[in-house]
Amino acid sequence: MTDVTGLTVGVLGGTGPQGKGLALRWAKAGIKVIIGSRSAERAEAAATELGDGVTGADNTTTAAAADVVLVAVPWEGHGDLLASLREQLRGKIVIDCVNPLGFDKQGPFALPVEEGSAAQQAEQLLPESRVTAAFHHVSAVHLADLSIAEMDTDVLVLGDDREATDLVRGLADAIPGMRGVYGGRLRNAHQVEAFTANLIAINRRYKAHAGIRVTDV
Amino acid sequence: MTDVTGLTVGVLGGTGPQGKGLALRWAKAGIKVIIGSRSAERAEAAATELGDGVTGADNTTTAAAADVVLVAVPWEGHGDLLASLREQLRGKIVIDCVNPLGFDKQGPFALPVEEGSAAQQAEQLLPESRVTAAFHHVSAVHLADLSIAEMDTDVLVLGDDREATDLVRGLADAIPGMRGVYGGRLRNAHQVEAFTANLIAINRRYKAHAGIRVTDV
Repeated sequence: MTDVTGLTVGVLGGTGPQGKGLALRWAKAGIKVIIGSRSAERAEAAATELGDGVTGADNTTTAAAADVVLVAVPWEGHGDLLASLREQLRGKIVIDCVNPLGFDKQGPFALPVEEGSAAQQAEQLLPESRVTAAFHHVSAVHLADLSIAEMDTDVLVLGDDREATDLVRGLADAIPGMRGVYGGRLRNAHQVEAFTANLIAINRRYKAHAGIRVTDV
Repeated sequence: MTDVTGLTVGVLGGTGPQGKGLALRWAKAGIKVIIGSRSAERAEAAATELGDGVTGADNTTTAAAADVVLVAVPWEGHGDLLASLREQLRGKIVIDCVNPLGFDKQGPFALPVEEGSAAQQAEQLLPESRVTAAFHHVSAVHLADLSIAEMDTDVLVLGDDREATDLVRGLADAIPGMRGVYGGRLRNAHQVEAFTANLIAINRRYKAHAGIRVTDV
């Protein structure tokens, strides 16, 4: 398995629940983390709250300083942010965990995405980066709750670059209870993103924070 | 959990690997099964092979005789077959397990479906039936291999009719090791069908017959 100690992970949108939760767990695992946000002040406040050596900066500074970047911003701001960070993200492994979802009276549903998926939009906007997709299905509530020592979930890692998906799998494996599993090429990211709508429906029905495990692997 | 003993399950496309495998496991669980096929002779031959009281008939006779119908035909014939069975399927619970997939040099990928998903196409063609979607991710290889006593997989059951999804969950629970889990409304079926492309990619990478489990439920 790829060694991920020594990496610096930047989390764009790191003040939101998913990014902040993963930042917390990586920091606890001894990985250096920079929280990124539109506001450097909010990023610094979140970093101080997390402790464990986490630092905070605006998204641009975070993207420039990190070795690997997790994109955990709301779908609404996804395209504009990534288009603005093309230089800072050149040559880097980018992990997209964004789920383009809508909600109405009947609950969650997947939004259509012109490029096919958030991850494929990232790939188009960042042609010189190594774009992967992962961490869509991890419960932010469980990530934030340190009384849960083991996360009990697999993380599907998608991408067309074997070295990149192996490294991202290593970042999943670094969190206790989590396991990174290769999940297919980036063109198959849509259904992984959209499946988050099903998990939300499951959570509502069962009053749970569902994740998935892949069997026979 | 809904009692499913006493039901007769018809399997349209029951001579294909997915339908035949589920027919085998239901028959072993004491549920009456009719294998349907375009050719009554092929259906009867498959039924004789399976034993355990399974019978075979053409798809139309099967749809008319069964209480609950599993649609396990190739995607290419899905729409035409269901359009022809509207009368026979009136008022019945229909379980769609069809995955509209394509394959090229880069492996499997999800096909676009005008109605959103195979299950939603079924719903449009069968407005007087109770359409659900389930059993997409169950390995046909494992189903056929009776040395595997426990299937070790959850079955996501989607649909807008609670009584129908509960009954289909019961049909999953009837197979040892399998568990039926409510997976959302029918409008969220596309990603569940399409996710089969990811499982095939996983199977190729890991030389496995992957399934999924939902955690925290």
